[in-house]
Amino acid sequence: MSSDGFRPLDEKSLVEYLKATPSLSVKLGDQFDKLEIKEVGDGNLNFVYIVIGQSGSFVIKQALPYIRCIGESWPMTKERAYFEASTLEEHGRLCPDHVPEVYHFDRKMCLIGMRYIKPPHIILRKGLISGIEYPLLAEHMSEYMARTLFFTSLLYLTTTEHKSAVAKFCGNVELCRLTEQVVFSDPYKVSEYNHWTSPYLDADAEAVREDNLLKLEIAELKSKFCERAQALIHGDLHTGSVMVTTESTQVIDPEFSFYGPMGFDIGAFIGNLILAYFSQDGHAEKDADRKLYKEWILKTISDTWNLFYEKFTALWDQHKDGPGEAYLAAIYNNSELQLLVKQKYMDDLFHDTLGFGAAKMIRRIVGVAHVEDFESIKEADKRAECERKALNLAKTLLKDRKTFHNISEVISAIKHLDK
Amino acid sequence: MSSDGFRPLDEKSLVEYLKATPSLSVKLGDQFDKLEIKEVGDGNLNFVYIVIGQSGSFVIKQALPYIRCIGESWPMTKERAYFEASTLEEHGRLCPDHVPEVYHFDRKMCLIGMRYIKPPHIILRKGLISGIEYPLLAEHMSEYMARTLFFTSLLYLTTTEHKSAVAKFCGNVELCRLTEQVVFSDPYKVSEYNHWTSPYLDADAEAVREDNLLKLEIAELKSKFCERAQALIHGDLHTGSVMVTTESTQVIDPEFSFYGPMGFDIGAFIGNLILAYFSQDGHAEKDADRKLYKEWILKTISDTWNLFYEKFTALWDQHKDGPGEAYLAAIYNNSELQLLVKQKYMDDLFHDTLGFGAAKMIRRIVGVAHVEDFESIKEADKRAECERKALNLAKTLLKDRKTFHNISEVISAIKHLDK
Repeated sequence: MSSDGFRPLDEKSLVEYLKATPSLSVKLGDQFDKLEIKEVGDGNLNFVYIVIGQSGSFVIKQALPYIRCIGESWPMTKERAYFEASTLEEHGRLCPDHVPEVYHFDRKMCLIGMRYIKPPHIILRKGLISGIEYPLLAEHMSEYMARTLFFTSLLYLTTTEHKSAVAKFCGNVELCRLTEQVVFSDPYKVSEYNHWTSPYLDADAEAVREDNLLKLEIAELKSKFCERAQALIHGDLHTGSVMVTTESTQVIDPEFSFYGPMGFDIGAFIGNLILAYFSQDGHAEKDADRKLYKEWILKTISDTWNLFYEKFTALWDQHKDGPGEAYLAAIYNNSELQLLVKQKYMDDLFHDTLGFGAAKMIRRIVGVAHVEDFESIKEADKRAECERKALNLAKTLLKDRKTFHNISEVISAIKHLDK
Repeated sequence: MSSDGFRPLDEKSLVEYLKATPSLSVKLGDQFDKLEIKEVGDGNLNFVYIVIGQSGSFVIKQALPYIRCIGESWPMTKERAYFEASTLEEHGRLCPDHVPEVYHFDRKMCLIGMRYIKPPHIILRKGLISGIEYPLLAEHMSEYMARTLFFTSLLYLTTTEHKSAVAKFCGNVELCRLTEQVVFSDPYKVSEYNHWTSPYLDADAEAVREDNLLKLEIAELKSKFCERAQALIHGDLHTGSVMVTTESTQVIDPEFSFYGPMGFDIGAFIGNLILAYFSQDGHAEKDADRKLYKEWILKTISDTWNLFYEKFTALWDQHKDGPGEAYLAAIYNNSELQLLVKQKYMDDLFHDTLGFGAAKMIRRIVGVAHVEDFESIKEADKRAECERKALNLAKTLLKDRKTFHNISEVISAIKHLDK
């Protein structure tokens, strides 16, 4: 054990830990003889153990003091577990249907015990690659985003509550810095970590690094990411952070969470759906052209934004006389004005969403960490063709985002580029 | 003494305190027999003692746990002294020529010992009312603002330094809330604290409370004030927070300081100069029409912004390979792009400055706390006429700020309204 009380657990020491931890052992009915334990993390970022007993089950996630990145280890504070647990608890309180319950948190051990999200749940990204439709996905994700973002913003919180929460999450700075680097910096400069489908996209990657207007826009978004404490965002809301069945949607892994711009979450989710869309041609087969599936993805993108808009503004209406100090009822006291402020707020949020979504797409094509949607397309030329379409759309969205008025214009732009 | 170690000092206990405090007693050569002590604060916000000994002098400022507001006391954390001392030290390090040096800070006693800003220094606002020209004012204030804002922003700080400082100043939330209320809320609703030159401005005050477009814009600025941690701002940079002679300019009283939008400081200063301008007709006399003085104020407004622009962008150029993480040299790697990002940044800052400046003007005419520039005009009808011009300019600036391209367009608008 190190001097700070941290020691990485293995399967054996885990059992001893469970026995000594009432909030976890009670879930197992204090019976440890027929325990089933499986390590399912990659062991290089976090340990993730599934623990199944006769009367209950849970997941144990322990953060390690580094993260794995293309084979190399970057030191990375294990304190991220504290912010992950805090956000699981806060988002879980606000949206229990779509966030796993935290049973136990041990700050010294950087260890979270939480609800086991059972099969047939799979990672959404894998479902999208397999061409599975999730009819409730847009409904659930819009609900999750509307509730977690609304209730942690100044639309609902007092200034006092907000500033205190902002201060706490300033502590997650190492994870914020990592995002800054991989999303807002590396793709726009020569970096040893960048890679792309070479040689096909060599010129495309270079064009990103030489596009002054693109760099002008990414600077504005980076400033917002670093400076604007709008709400408690998940911070890494791509399709790999969502587990699904056709009936259930569960958001996991908020270790990058902090008070940042809402559009970063909504954009991450929608941007990754757009990546999934453009990867479909690479997964199409003779007897399964994925045409209908692509339509479903577009509908899901559109529904996600539109339902988010509806739910978020409904929460706003519902709580307009609530504790939130941003728009006092005594000032915003007529329906015309209430409509005006909501439209302006949502327009700005829409443009942030498109900008951040585009940034998240670009970094997945020419940056350090790519997505399985494209990586699983074996033929490099075919993969590059899919990626180029996604990259070109992202560049348009990033540079011209303020010219888009609604999500159907975005859908049209996607279809136009896919011709 | 209360349980937290705080006790308000009087002249007698102050001497005992000084004797027991080496960092202060040394300034007096440890001689206490011929000490001259004057209380110059209003005793309702802070105690301010001027202490003059045979070999040195200083000011002692002690925060009390309330502030005075139109005769009533509002409870207000005395912890503000901690933030005031922190910012005096930080801004003083960055701009020692224009910030009084801190000799001593006692957190429990909420007590700051600092350089005595000697006569003939007077409060700038009083100088402006008297019609005194300060030929170096724009030069000095632009220097102060450029240095304090640049070096505490992400243009110079790393993300790690920035987030840690942001977290610390989140603690000054009570003072931020007060600003939110008096600047961004009260003037736009019926509030017992509001007052104005009645009956002359009754309709004008009502028009502010019923102007949907004005309220739409003030909401955007309030969001920026609450959410955007751009730099360590003074937070209350009106002409009452500046002491001057014709050769020297000293910025005092940063108890409202926190990480907020830069434009709030620049706007406060310029907005208060505009108020001073519009008050001049009320101070004009037969043999002193103040026409030339008004020209000097306009020139000072113009010079302040233009010199700020010059100095701030010069610091940016000078430190473009420095520690700041907002615009990495490897990305912003050509002169065309460097120019583009600076122009965009400064345009946005200019529009923030006009918006916040306007908000600060409006609240001084129809809100709780007015300015001596107008209050000292005895004839109510004449005062109202001056105030109405300032109010109308402020409304234009707030609503149409994004249509202004440079400070000379603002000067033209001022002159146009003054016809």
